[in-house]
Amino acid sequence: MRRSSFFLPTLKETPSEAQIASHRLMLRAGMIRQSAAGIYSWLPLGLKVLRRIEQIVREEQDAAGAQELLMPTIQSADIWRESGRYDAYGKEMLRIRDRHDREMLFGPTNEELITQLFRDNVKSYRDLPKILYHIQWKFRDEVRPRFGVMRGREFLMKDSYSFDLDFEGAKKSYETMFTAYLKTFKRMGLTAIPMRADSGAIGGNLTHEFHILAETGESGVFYDVAYDELAAKGEIDLEALDRLYAATDEKHVPGGPGVPPAEQLREARGIEVGHIFYFGTKYSKAMNAVVQGPNGDPVAVEMGSYGIGVSRLVGAIIEAHHDERGIIWPASVAPFQVGLINLKSGDTACDAVCEDLYTKLTAAGIETLYDDRDDRAGVKFADMDLIGLPWQVVIGPKGVAAGIVELKNRATGERVELSAEAALARLAG
Amino acid sequence: MRRSSFFLPTLKETPSEAQIASHRLMLRAGMIRQSAAGIYSWLPLGLKVLRRIEQIVREEQDAAGAQELLMPTIQSADIWRESGRYDAYGKEMLRIRDRHDREMLFGPTNEELITQLFRDNVKSYRDLPKILYHIQWKFRDEVRPRFGVMRGREFLMKDSYSFDLDFEGAKKSYETMFTAYLKTFKRMGLTAIPMRADSGAIGGNLTHEFHILAETGESGVFYDVAYDELAAKGEIDLEALDRLYAATDEKHVPGGPGVPPAEQLREARGIEVGHIFYFGTKYSKAMNAVVQGPNGDPVAVEMGSYGIGVSRLVGAIIEAHHDERGIIWPASVAPFQVGLINLKSGDTACDAVCEDLYTKLTAAGIETLYDDRDDRAGVKFADMDLIGLPWQVVIGPKGVAAGIVELKNRATGERVELSAEAALARLAG
Repeated sequence: MRRSSFFLPTLKETPSEAQIASHRLMLRAGMIRQSAAGIYSWLPLGLKVLRRIEQIVREEQDAAGAQELLMPTIQSADIWRESGRYDAYGKEMLRIRDRHDREMLFGPTNEELITQLFRDNVKSYRDLPKILYHIQWKFRDEVRPRFGVMRGREFLMKDSYSFDLDFEGAKKSYETMFTAYLKTFKRMGLTAIPMRADSGAIGGNLTHEFHILAETGESGVFYDVAYDELAAKGEIDLEALDRLYAATDEKHVPGGPGVPPAEQLREARGIEVGHIFYFGTKYSKAMNAVVQGPNGDPVAVEMGSYGIGVSRLVGAIIEAHHDERGIIWPASVAPFQVGLINLKSGDTACDAVCEDLYTKLTAAGIETLYDDRDDRAGVKFADMDLIGLPWQVVIGPKGVAAGIVELKNRATGERVELSAEAALARLAG
Repeated sequence: MRRSSFFLPTLKETPSEAQIASHRLMLRAGMIRQSAAGIYSWLPLGLKVLRRIEQIVREEQDAAGAQELLMPTIQSADIWRESGRYDAYGKEMLRIRDRHDREMLFGPTNEELITQLFRDNVKSYRDLPKILYHIQWKFRDEVRPRFGVMRGREFLMKDSYSFDLDFEGAKKSYETMFTAYLKTFKRMGLTAIPMRADSGAIGGNLTHEFHILAETGESGVFYDVAYDELAAKGEIDLEALDRLYAATDEKHVPGGPGVPPAEQLREARGIEVGHIFYFGTKYSKAMNAVVQGPNGDPVAVEMGSYGIGVSRLVGAIIEAHHDERGIIWPASVAPFQVGLINLKSGDTACDAVCEDLYTKLTAAGIETLYDDRDDRAGVKFADMDLIGLPWQVVIGPKGVAAGIVELKNRATGERVELSAEAALARLAG
């Protein structure tokens, strides 16, 4: 993509309304614009990142055996009356009356709708287990939306729902999603700490929150240092994980039960990006989602739900990966892999080397943003650091005369000079 | 995907509420389920088709130089007051009040929001031309939603918006989208006839509707037979197209001005799937979307908008491609390319041949739905014809003993017997 025609309105100044790093950087890097309180338009650069994150989430859900469908944003109030949540949900639910004065709502979550779909279409235990998911825009009418996409009103969420015949099956589905979540966040360059969200009684609710570590995270988190060792091994050992202490500052009591000794306790900051629940037959009983069991008797299905804040993750990743100059995208979610800077657009020799390399990078399938604007070098450097693509290739008149380009790693700041061919080979490798 | 675990609730009976072929077939083939009047959930099979259509639309927009972004579903009433359309829009607009009693709405279209985005972020003629688009769910509160996804209330639409400095530029953008639309529909196996939607005065509005031909189409269309010749050539000659007569039955006057003689006039049935408009400075003047022109003076930008009904196309393609047994997907939008039927699941030899071919098809990147259910052959045949995948491979005990499988083309009904290896080679080829 040529920067001269790309719709990428970067900002030099920090917008005053933005209080946290990711919000500031997303506005400055031309990723989003607010259209109403807590409601954003995703400009091309932001949308590219959102789609990459969405695709990683999708691939890990598919790999875990979950099946994607898509429920609508607008729901009838009727099914929420069936579950008993219509009145309970309160003012966060965006309530709507249509032209025939029927009560509707913009879905804040989808337990009711998926339970209705399941009930109407699945009749036998032979069709279990099932994990169904969708990635759809939700709306929660926050009193004070803030922090950009981290706490917006309209947000993109992946929500999965599991259906099993019994608790053993439900627990297995829960563990399948638990593992998928750890893989998902890892692929995005994040360290995710699963935390019991509710201690519960034996056999009671199972629920975990997933917090990713970020120095500028919204909440303090305390966890057993053994977690880092487990994560370093790259293996996902659910039983080992389950024994480890982890809690947000809201719940952590220094020296409390289960808290490891100081030398074993790590304190960090985190951001909640996922939440999983086992809730048994709460919805299936209320809404009559039963299947015929092996012995012919009707069985209310055991359910769980599993959410990932997809749009929130864009902000969370930036909180975890930025410096004072801008964003530092992990390669797996970067909007482009390479930023190509022409230090002297209009100079015949510079243009020729840049165009040639741009063509070759593109042909090699390496997504490249080519800054071909007629602007000062300083502007281009600052913009490229702000946008945070993993690699920069800088091409200027002196280098061209000497047959070299500069390759810069955005994360480490490391620069090397090499021929354009060598740069291409390294980036393609 | 194994049919035994796939969430694909096909129906034997035709649902009574469905009046047209595509609605009946989408319900029967387990593609959609209605959750409220005119509001549907897309089950996995339906979602796959929707995504393929969306992707073709996206690729052709990108190829035409349009840039994708994503505007939210919920908009503030304020910008619609600026354009003067808030009151004018009537009851089709789903109006909402949030918890702070602010007037919001679920976007039925996005001229206002994109004009605001443009106005706030583009300042100079040097940034023109621009074509921006998004693919997002819209809501129009139809009095009587019907015909399934063909006239739903919540629907997926691709809408592009062009911004130019003058009429000449705007006309070029219009022609770019016009051409992209013809390519888009052609890739989906459709014949699209562009029709002037409004004759307009000289220099006035330019607007075309795109109708695709389908025997069960909603409206009659009349067009010059020369169109078929042009289409057969595969070239897109805008000037030649523009001279040809084409009109829906609403506007067609037999023997009226411009109508070709009977032997030159073709009568068919069609479905509107796209609509493009040039509307000049209507929104840019009302909303003050100006750029600095080449001579320093402010210029209100010339705009156009270009819509494709993405979810509607799912129904439209079925209307154009089905028979009495079910859907016949064009390969470019088919949810799977191959349906593999095991005539005797549980039979060791049959299972072995099926599993082996399923593994090899999948490894070759050919998306395959494997009917591994323990069910009667007749049920499997009927289901596979209903779902309408381009190819079927049928494997039964007799064939396995003889070392052959049956390969069936869903569109032509043609069947050939050949070895499993030969079938694989043909499907991969």
